[in-house]
Amino acid sequence: MKKYKIAVIPGDGIGVEVMKEGVKVLETLSKLTGEVAFDFTWFDWGCEYYLENGKMMDDDGLEKLKNFDAILLGAVGFPGVPDHVSLRDLLLKIRQGFDQYINYRPVKLLSELDCPIKGKKPGDIDMIFIRENTEGEYAGIGGIEREGKEEEIALQTSVFTRKTTEKVMDYAFDLAKKRNKLNHLTSITKSNALNHSMVFWDKIFKEKKANYPEIKTAEYHVDAAAMYMIQRPESFDVVVASNLFGDILTDLGAALQGGLGFAAGANINPDGKYPSMFEPVHGSAPEIAGKGLANPIAMIWTIKIMLDFLGHESLADTVMKGIEGSLEMREKLTPDMGGKGSTSQVGEIICDIMSK
Amino acid sequence: MKKYKIAVIPGDGIGVEVMKEGVKVLETLSKLTGEVAFDFTWFDWGCEYYLENGKMMDDDGLEKLKNFDAILLGAVGFPGVPDHVSLRDLLLKIRQGFDQYINYRPVKLLSELDCPIKGKKPGDIDMIFIRENTEGEYAGIGGIEREGKEEEIALQTSVFTRKTTEKVMDYAFDLAKKRNKLNHLTSITKSNALNHSMVFWDKIFKEKKANYPEIKTAEYHVDAAAMYMIQRPESFDVVVASNLFGDILTDLGAALQGGLGFAAGANINPDGKYPSMFEPVHGSAPEIAGKGLANPIAMIWTIKIMLDFLGHESLADTVMKGIEGSLEMREKLTPDMGGKGSTSQVGEIICDIMSK
Ligand SMILES: CC(C)[C@H](C(=O)O)[C@@H](O)C(=O)O
Ligand SMILES: CC(C)[C@H](C(=O)O)[C@@H](O)C(=O)O
Repeated sequence: MKKYKIAVIPGDGIGVEVMKEGVKVLETLSKLTGEVAFDFTWFDWGCEYYLENGKMMDDDGLEKLKNFDAILLGAVGFPGVPDHVSLRDLLLKIRQGFDQYINYRPVKLLSELDCPIKGKKPGDIDMIFIRENTEGEYAGIGGIEREGKEEEIALQTSVFTRKTTEKVMDYAFDLAKKRNKLNHLTSITKSNALNHSMVFWDKIFKEKKANYPEIKTAEYHVDAAAMYMIQRPESFDVVVASNLFGDILTDLGAALQGGLGFAAGANINPDGKYPSMFEPVHGSAPEIAGKGLANPIAMIWTIKIMLDFLGHESLADTVMKGIEGSLEMREKLTPDMGGKGSTSQVGEIICDIMSK
Repeated sequence: MKKYKIAVIPGDGIGVEVMKEGVKVLETLSKLTGEVAFDFTWFDWGCEYYLENGKMMDDDGLEKLKNFDAILLGAVGFPGVPDHVSLRDLLLKIRQGFDQYINYRPVKLLSELDCPIKGKKPGDIDMIFIRENTEGEYAGIGGIEREGKEEEIALQTSVFTRKTTEKVMDYAFDLAKKRNKLNHLTSITKSNALNHSMVFWDKIFKEKKANYPEIKTAEYHVDAAAMYMIQRPESFDVVVASNLFGDILTDLGAALQGGLGFAAGANINPDGKYPSMFEPVHGSAPEIAGKGLANPIAMIWTIKIMLDFLGHESLADTVMKGIEGSLEMREKLTPDMGGKGSTSQVGEIICDIMSK
């Protein structure tokens, strides 16, 4: 039996609710198979913690998390704490502090689901985004000068390093190869306007491309890519993008796959030097928090990605079977899916199906 | 009779083809009504010009354009000239040089057209984007350091000034008031990650909002906005966004309104100190250039916006009538619309309808 030490940060709002279901799934798997055991340590960091302690996480938070096998994060952010505090001081701090330079996000329409785009069916929406996750537009460098004056000016600097850009692109090319869907990688750029960062991005992409002659490629400006994802999503396989562009296009992708209730993700440190963090794409959704309305499927799909990452592919498949099975019982799903089920009932259903 | 001096820059690729139709429409109006006359001066700037002369436009190009009443631009960019040269040295140079700080783009599904999103009809897609058009992410500041070395790093700095940001937001609030659709303005931000530029943007928005108590507002992160535009486009009225965010979301918008063949736009200097430039959103589309395949409607719609801007609202309405009329003859439209018509035939049809 493999044992894993998992750090659990439910965070804020619906993060708390969906996390319970994620953990339930892991515990079910453990009981079911005896193949894995999880030792969960819960951290109450987040906006409530901030309001009490003036900080989003402990000062030595990264130190505390460092030796876990993986981190599960629910969602962060709540009215009363400015977003740039709550997110930068917890979520982005972990992503950057643990060098989780790969943000891995499947955009896939599951077989029982309806695509909002006319004429597109499951199978047409099936891509994986590899988003740079530690630098780029999110570097956090800049400032505001002459505050309040007529001449006030704000600067924000993006930082792209060769080292990280290369690693991200290698990861994406390798995935395109391993995945073996279309053997295709799309790079998202905007070099017609961002004349330094994206010209640099394109240059590294061109260098890397030479090493992967078996992978077909496309390079789209981010504006065109947003359009193509709607017009011909079936032409996308693996997509590599900067931090910001990946952020925007994966939310667009979430819309194509049935909403944020189905958008799973992972923040990966492929070097294994630090723990990776598994986190659904959705936020804390304060407007529906605490009511059992949140769809836990994104979180549970995220759990599936963690199991893959830990090397338990057949367990991961069991989780996916649970998710897909639940979709056949539409009326028992959460309200975003037109059902009458609660967050925990959906978690229950998925565990039941997994146990069959 | 009002006379206008119009600078015409067809540019590259399909820019040349659609421009002919735009000019045809203006000449038709002139003959038809006797209310306006246009004196066109053609400039052959663009990528071919670059390949011959090593520059995209004359050194004193802005000087030459300065005294026109308006500029018409087709599209810029062609294989063989790097995008960051062709676009920055012509299109962006005029936008910035003439302080055209408003990029005005309607995202509207015309009544005969089909929305790619299930359940959405014309009327559901009817918003106007006001995009900052001279600074922000497009400031062009930055560089690459330690080129080719392992430590290579690229920086790109966004610049937001209070002066321009205020003017753009005022313009957007005024439009939301004047338009009187939902009296609603959406501001696009990403302050949870871009902790200087977008925190600044939000601050100015909050200040301005206080002056427009009659306008309802929403503030969405750009990622969420991309999703909402697909999920509930009907909730958008006027949208104000930075240069880059406006760029991305208006291409997404183009997909909602039937493609780039219907995406019109204007680069406006509202102060009237410099000429404004009218330009469809689409690019030069080298892959279909020179074949009569390009849909001229975006260009003709752009002409309509120019007429509005010049104060000829009833002429602008006539152009719109021409466009809408043409949509009833689907088989005569260009191939992107499923028709068999050529670029110039569609221009003809629109002029015919206008003349009735
Ligand atoms: C909350 C926010 C900072 C975050 C991001 O922009 O990365 C989120 O949108 C995401 O995609 O994980
Ligand atoms: C061609 C490019 C520089 C331009 C932009 O990004 O502004 C275009 O995409 C647009 O939207 O007008």
